[in-house]
Amino acid sequence: MQLVIGNKNYSSWSLRPWLGLKVAGIEFDEQLHNLYAANAREERLQWSPSGKVPVLLDGDVTIWETLAIAEYIAERFPLAQLWPQDPIARALARTVCAEMHAGFAALRTACPMDVRSRHAFEMTPEVAADVARVVALWADCRERFGIDSNEGEFLFGHFTWADAFFAPVVTRLVTYGIEVPAAAQVYMQTVLALPAMQEWLAAGELEVGAAP
Amino acid sequence: MQLVIGNKNYSSWSLRPWLGLKVAGIEFDEQLHNLYAANAREERLQWSPSGKVPVLLDGDVTIWETLAIAEYIAERFPLAQLWPQDPIARALARTVCAEMHAGFAALRTACPMDVRSRHAFEMTPEVAADVARVVALWADCRERFGIDSNEGEFLFGHFTWADAFFAPVVTRLVTYGIEVPAAAQVYMQTVLALPAMQEWLAAGELEVGAAP
Ligand SMILES: N[C@@H](CCC(=O)N[C@@H](CS)C(=O)NCC(=O)O)C(=O)O
Ligand SMILES: N[C@@H](CCC(=O)N[C@@H](CS)C(=O)NCC(=O)O)C(=O)O
Repeated sequence: MQLVIGNKNYSSWSLRPWLGLKVAGIEFDEQLHNLYAANAREERLQWSPSGKVPVLLDGDVTIWETLAIAEYIAERFPLAQLWPQDPIARALARTVCAEMHAGFAALRTACPMDVRSRHAFEMTPEVAADVARVVALWADCRERFGIDSNEGEFLFGHFTWADAFFAPVVTRLVTYGIEVPAAAQVYMQTVLALPAMQEWLAAGELEVGAAP
Repeated sequence: MQLVIGNKNYSSWSLRPWLGLKVAGIEFDEQLHNLYAANAREERLQWSPSGKVPVLLDGDVTIWETLAIAEYIAERFPLAQLWPQDPIARALARTVCAEMHAGFAALRTACPMDVRSRHAFEMTPEVAADVARVVALWADCRERFGIDSNEGEFLFGHFTWADAFFAPVVTRLVTYGIEVPAAAQVYMQTVLALPAMQEWLAAGELEVGAAP
């Protein structure tokens, strides 16, 4: 199984499946693609008809969308419990992943992922609304399914795809110095403390090249 | 089970789960929400913390994202086969649904769903690229999994969530008079001929009120 990913400092979509696979201890070959190379789009089109990364390659299967990679891995490795076992929790976990997948446009546009940097940021009402929604969503998941767990402070008690989907948001809040309530900070620390997350951040730090 | 949907003439996201449920013959209560009412956002927030429709309500479960509704229905009604049975086809079906969910921004912005109208449209390079990608994606699914089927000309041989996800695009191509190759037209006719699709289009026709 091979996962093609973009630059670790910048590629928020790549972080999601990479983190899920690593935390679950699933072996895969990592293929690094430089999003900013001269022929980058042509290179991506070899793997992905949409011209985007990440892409998962597994025998005859090619998957070029993060949510579909998540479902495929969850089906292929059920013991990893990357979706919650409880059907109601699972429905909510998928809902927040889908909300992340097409939502939070203001936050994503104003605060692109850049894990190794710290940027001054002038808050706007649109970004503030997105941040408020993220904070409310984290609180809602954790109150309903995360609290009273001995396995950490994750959204659904133990690490699931939902945590992987919000991991890039965690790094953005750090990079742009955006303040959030204490409970959200505890959650952020939980994600940042994952050994796999530390590994990704360290690699982003060392990576050569800056986005144009 | 209750599905809250927006105006049938306009709400592309609402069409997707509604169509999947109808084609699969799954009973549900339909709750119509007027996206353009004065207090529309407040009304939506009763059901959905994201303030968007569609929303599926099923006992303790509230799902406000179309992709998560699709997964929930597929799990709860496996005999409906709303995802393909073959794991490779299923991975591809989920991939194209996820690509639709966050992609095709140019087409969606320039050509909002408006099923009962016909609008003159000046093609742009961005919309042309999106249309070309849709046509290629349909051809790819149908060549690999749709052809030689006796069950119609669907993307994966029989009706699946992938067809539901692209149904609003089918109506946009009609509304804006966008030309596509013959094979894509055959596929469009297949979707438009579904009795459930005819029912939705007829309701859109009769619906009172126009988007501002
Ligand atoms: N919907 C896709 C989004 C993937 C995406 O936007 N990837 C970025 C890198 S983070 C990319 O490949 N950008 C290149 C481009 O858009 O041309 C997913 O969920 O995987
Ligand atoms: N990602 C959502 C999108 C839902 C969506 O954008 N719904 C529109 C109607 S088609 C809506 O509720 N718009 C109201 C708003 O954005 O305030 C999904 O997949 O269900």
